[in-house]
Amino acid sequence: MRLLVINPNTTRAMTAKIATAARRVARPGTEIIATQPDIGPESIQGFLDVARSQQGLLEVARRHPDVDAVVVACFDDTGVDALRCVFDGPVIGIGEAGFHAATMIATRFAVVTTLARSVPGLEDNLDRYGLARRCVGVRATDVPVLELETHPARAETRIASEIAAAISEDRADAIVLGCAGMADLNDRLARRFGLPVIDGVTCAVTLAEALVAAGLKTSPAGAYAGGTERERTVPCVAAP
Amino acid sequence: MRLLVINPNTTRAMTAKIATAARRVARPGTEIIATQPDIGPESIQGFLDVARSQQGLLEVARRHPDVDAVVVACFDDTGVDALRCVFDGPVIGIGEAGFHAATMIATRFAVVTTLARSVPGLEDNLDRYGLARRCVGVRATDVPVLELETHPARAETRIASEIAAAISEDRADAIVLGCAGMADLNDRLARRFGLPVIDGVTCAVTLAEALVAAGLKTSPAGAYAGGTERERTVPCVAAP
Amino acid sequence: MRLLVINPNTTRAMTAKIATAARRVARPGTEIIATQPDIGPESIQGFLDVARSQQGLLEVARRHPDVDAVVVACFDDTGVDALRCVFDGPVIGIGEAGFHAATMIATRFAVVTTLARSVPGLEDNLDRYGLARRCVGVRATDVPVLELETHPARAETRIASEIAAAISEDRADAIVLGCAGMADLNDRLARRFGLPVIDGVTCAVTLAEALVAAGLKTSPAGAYAGGTERERTVPCVAAP
Amino acid sequence: MRLLVINPNTTRAMTAKIATAARRVARPGTEIIATQPDIGPESIQGFLDVARSQQGLLEVARRHPDVDAVVVACFDDTGVDALRCVFDGPVIGIGEAGFHAATMIATRFAVVTTLARSVPGLEDNLDRYGLARRCVGVRATDVPVLELETHPARAETRIASEIAAAISEDRADAIVLGCAGMADLNDRLARRFGLPVIDGVTCAVTLAEALVAAGLKTSPAGAYAGGTERERTVPCVAAP
Amino acid sequence: MRLLVINPNTTRAMTAKIATAARRVARPGTEIIATQPDIGPESIQGFLDVARSQQGLLEVARRHPDVDAVVVACFDDTGVDALRCVFDGPVIGIGEAGFHAATMIATRFAVVTTLARSVPGLEDNLDRYGLARRCVGVRATDVPVLELETHPARAETRIASEIAAAISEDRADAIVLGCAGMADLNDRLARRFGLPVIDGVTCAVTLAEALVAAGLKTSPAGAYAGGTERERTVPCVAAP
Amino acid sequence: MRLLVINPNTTRAMTAKIATAARRVARPGTEIIATQPDIGPESIQGFLDVARSQQGLLEVARRHPDVDAVVVACFDDTGVDALRCVFDGPVIGIGEAGFHAATMIATRFAVVTTLARSVPGLEDNLDRYGLARRCVGVRATDVPVLELETHPARAETRIASEIAAAISEDRADAIVLGCAGMADLNDRLARRFGLPVIDGVTCAVTLAEALVAAGLKTSPAGAYAGGTERERTVPCVAAP
Repeated sequence: MRLLVINPNTTRAMTAKIATAARRVARPGTEIIATQPDIGPESIQGFLDVARSQQGLLEVARRHPDVDAVVVACFDDTGVDALRCVFDGPVIGIGEAGFHAATMIATRFAVVTTLARSVPGLEDNLDRYGLARRCVGVRATDVPVLELETHPARAETRIASEIAAAISEDRADAIVLGCAGMADLNDRLARRFGLPVIDGVTCAVTLAEALVAAGLKTSPAGAYAGGTERERTVPCVAAP
Repeated sequence: MRLLVINPNTTRAMTAKIATAARRVARPGTEIIATQPDIGPESIQGFLDVARSQQGLLEVARRHPDVDAVVVACFDDTGVDALRCVFDGPVIGIGEAGFHAATMIATRFAVVTTLARSVPGLEDNLDRYGLARRCVGVRATDVPVLELETHPARAETRIASEIAAAISEDRADAIVLGCAGMADLNDRLARRFGLPVIDGVTCAVTLAEALVAAGLKTSPAGAYAGGTERERTVPCVAAP
Repeated sequence: MRLLVINPNTTRAMTAKIATAARRVARPGTEIIATQPDIGPESIQGFLDVARSQQGLLEVARRHPDVDAVVVACFDDTGVDALRCVFDGPVIGIGEAGFHAATMIATRFAVVTTLARSVPGLEDNLDRYGLARRCVGVRATDVPVLELETHPARAETRIASEIAAAISEDRADAIVLGCAGMADLNDRLARRFGLPVIDGVTCAVTLAEALVAAGLKTSPAGAYAGGTERERTVPCVAAP
Repeated sequence: MRLLVINPNTTRAMTAKIATAARRVARPGTEIIATQPDIGPESIQGFLDVARSQQGLLEVARRHPDVDAVVVACFDDTGVDALRCVFDGPVIGIGEAGFHAATMIATRFAVVTTLARSVPGLEDNLDRYGLARRCVGVRATDVPVLELETHPARAETRIASEIAAAISEDRADAIVLGCAGMADLNDRLARRFGLPVIDGVTCAVTLAEALVAAGLKTSPAGAYAGGTERERTVPCVAAP
Repeated sequence: MRLLVINPNTTRAMTAKIATAARRVARPGTEIIATQPDIGPESIQGFLDVARSQQGLLEVARRHPDVDAVVVACFDDTGVDALRCVFDGPVIGIGEAGFHAATMIATRFAVVTTLARSVPGLEDNLDRYGLARRCVGVRATDVPVLELETHPARAETRIASEIAAAISEDRADAIVLGCAGMADLNDRLARRFGLPVIDGVTCAVTLAEALVAAGLKTSPAGAYAGGTERERTVPCVAAP
Repeated sequence: MRLLVINPNTTRAMTAKIATAARRVARPGTEIIATQPDIGPESIQGFLDVARSQQGLLEVARRHPDVDAVVVACFDDTGVDALRCVFDGPVIGIGEAGFHAATMIATRFAVVTTLARSVPGLEDNLDRYGLARRCVGVRATDVPVLELETHPARAETRIASEIAAAISEDRADAIVLGCAGMADLNDRLARRFGLPVIDGVTCAVTLAEALVAAGLKTSPAGAYAGGTERERTVPCVAAP
């Protein structure tokens, strides 16, 4: 199967890290097509960046019409609902993938993410997906997304500190790492804390494969019903 | 005060209708600046159109930096969260304005909107705002947004039919009209049904005036914290 | 327009403070009629005081049948539902006004109120309005209502201390002051903490003006349906 | 034990019916003191009547300081929170009693009550008690409270019709009768429909006995913390 | 009446303590039949023990077909739903009994239980019953069930410490003790902390008596509808 | 990987059907071990059958200690929480698998199951998993589980009828089939109705493979923390 993995920001180093994580867990027969938009924010931190990334994301989708499933590798699941109107195959965000995986192996999970200003958007998502009941808290590390690349050791220290607090204060029994840029940390942190530390990229890739294997596609009815052919293929046109 | 009223789709006839509704209720001292984007969808019906409208919406915001408050005249409150990161003054969507007004004059309201594919997005909003508890149902008329302009009589018949059902089946004691394009219908329908029929444009304009009069601005903390000056002024740039 | 602002307790000094706050923000054409009952509790702190205030509140309503809108200037929105059965125009409590305003300018607000015994009633209201989802917590200062008049400096210190805790511990990005007697503190506290500090009286007055300007009245259907003429005009009669 | 059963309206025929239902199930050693206020509404139907009944209710409480427990025999649990601030022993409303009993013998109950304008208040209560999850719906019969006395056959037909609908449409497996004036109907309707039909008066009396037998009193902490002695004994005084 | 009180674990010393608590509050005419299974776990701590106890519990039920009501004396209400399919009379778990009682005498209760691994199951129950809204938190003491018998003083110290925290940190105004093995502690702790400390065994016994006195039985419709006679009488048979 | 697929009832024909569905979608390298208990109910319909199946389920678990993941092929996810305390690898119920899959490809799903008495248990699960928000309703067909084998045509007619109603009345945009015995119907019904019709067995198998591929195991902390070695290996012992 062909699996399109979109990093919705323009930072190519993050695309590379995401591709590595994806390929590590993908089935032998899965081709990972990892890419990012040409325009838009360098990282997605909060509501403004989400809005600024939509145009580039739709253009990426237009360049890759022929895939079996799509993973959106941004933890706030930027554009997932819109892409479900465009693609026939399953479209999964790494945020929801991490949340769903967590609820199948633990009773109460915590999320450890980057900046405080991203937290309300993640809490909105948890409510929309219905999974807020299972989440004991979304914790910000105050580490900007790009510092995960530039200052990895300091970032890991801050992340570990919030994981420790989620376990002792909130009784979390699993942790979901709240940024695609943390996709290389989960194994080490899981060993350190002795409980599941979940990376959304890994989960989204394997869940996408699972849905395809189960023969499932996005519903053509309801909210994801596509519009006219023109709407699907010309994401954003100049007004007459 | 200067009040920017943005129609987030590119249909100028709708902007004109929205401007009329806004000016009908605005205070004498309020200047209504009604506009729409140059690019983007002709109407906003569902998740894909929301994504396609973001770029144009941010460009409109950039053209009008100097206003006291902003109204987003699309019932799914497209881009409201992002615009709150950009403007200092209050930013209000006509959806939330209608919902808030309804809860202050009735115990249970119904929403009557256009296409079924827009319903889940409105239900998401109601949940995010916390107001779902007060809403007895979101009903689709299957009237596309643009038919409100091209076939007004047929549209009004369909809308009235769903209002009647909301009253008899769901015990609604107020109705919120779920599209900016219905802003000329509420008075007539209220008289016909003998209970409040609420137009979001009207409410958003007067609520924006109210917040400004009360001296309130969008919180600079939390989710609406702006980023760098560059993020605020250059909504979407080509990647290096 | 004529706006009746009812202080539901019998302390005239609070009525004066409330009237000052109301007149500071009201439109030029709005006549503020500020009053209080002749009988009932001196302040409203908890469920027993709410019950004790109903009789006086209904008598105030009977004395002022001819107004365009009503503000109930007690933060637990005492009697608002009953008054909506009596008046045709909008009736708004300062608690709900503060909550609604907060949700339009911030993602998560905290309430800072007087005594702990008032907190469950406020939490009930937040749930009834549906806005509990947006409230990160209701904090008591243990300052009785009347001490806001008699020991203002000490009261402000306690209020500021709880605001600081709401920001640091609960990530509040706006504060709603939970008592009409705090209506002179919000501007100073907003400057001090750098985020919106919302006074309910101010918001209720401007929101009432907004609803009237938008042409809205309380729904005559559903829960606010009045009974017989006698019920409306003779609030409480001796049994035969 | 001495059990005060308050009918919060002024209709003595209803007090008599309530007393009969209470005495039918009370323990041998329980003295039932059934009474009603001298002033207030003749029946309690909606928010305005609730407000109008508070003064009389508090005066009844003052006349009977020396009881072990209190039942408030109005289905909207009028004044229960206030009375808990006044009495040391348990205070139980017949609405909550019926709801609690239903959840211990069935998975999903329906409420069948009198007028539609009482429904939102009951739904508020269900939410406040937390029991809304277990209630499949509150149905109005459009039978005014006093017609239960004056036209009993017609009333019973309407009630039976709504019970049938609750079973077939909402899958209710128990019914709670939503008015003290229906306290003589439950046994006959239970036999007719073959599932529990619950009368709140009966349940409130036996639950009050149960709490007393278990040695429980209302919490003196939190929301029910009494104020000064004066607040407890002088429910409503003229202002200075 | 004959009241079957089942301790669902195999520890006879706990059965004796439960029987003592039950007899202390039961009506004179109530015969308490206290028993426990022959097989199953020695204490019930978490999901695995719950599963391991089902077989023994069903066999106890088969030995005592002729009772008026049943109390399941394990705080996670083990097997209550299944037993409601078997017995005609009311079946009440001590967990739900404590929760219901608490909500009638306090606004917000806390639960203090044994091991952390039991907490998610209790939280599930609170959600299922709908009563989570009224619970400010479930706190684990890390005292295993059987240590309540073997090290009572140390256990009581830990329990008191968590009660103190629930009051100061979570504003609890009543405490529910979360284990049948704590049934001898509630009176002493209530005096110490000056608010209700509720034992589930005592409440379940008096609530069961109350439901029987009110003439209520488990609904024969819906989820508790029994199957064939064979299902009721032969809980678990070898497959053909 | 070795995947244990447990049919928790004793009907071998259902085990065979489940095994077929599982093998149809499993990866080439996955060994499906399909089995059922020796004792317990012939089908699981409601709370009593769930209790009766626990002993047999734990014995099956003891016979197969050496697997990488477990699927419980009963739609009410019988015993999943208990098995998570026993196995190290992921344990997934077919109910939760169907629900999670549905939320990733649709906005609102409906469940179509067998008997009405199973519905409350499924609704409890949806609440516990947090996914109730996304489910528009659980519909019973009144087809007993075993009639899916004995009267397949009649059963399919009834299922199709409820699917049609869920689409037209509840606006479902995906259907989850609520019984392992329906695992051969989903493809045909999906083609007939033009939207996803989801079989839980298929989803549980591919999701289990996904979690294993992502390197995830059940959390050893919190509710699934195992007890002593004895508890894990001796599911149910005679009491001393």
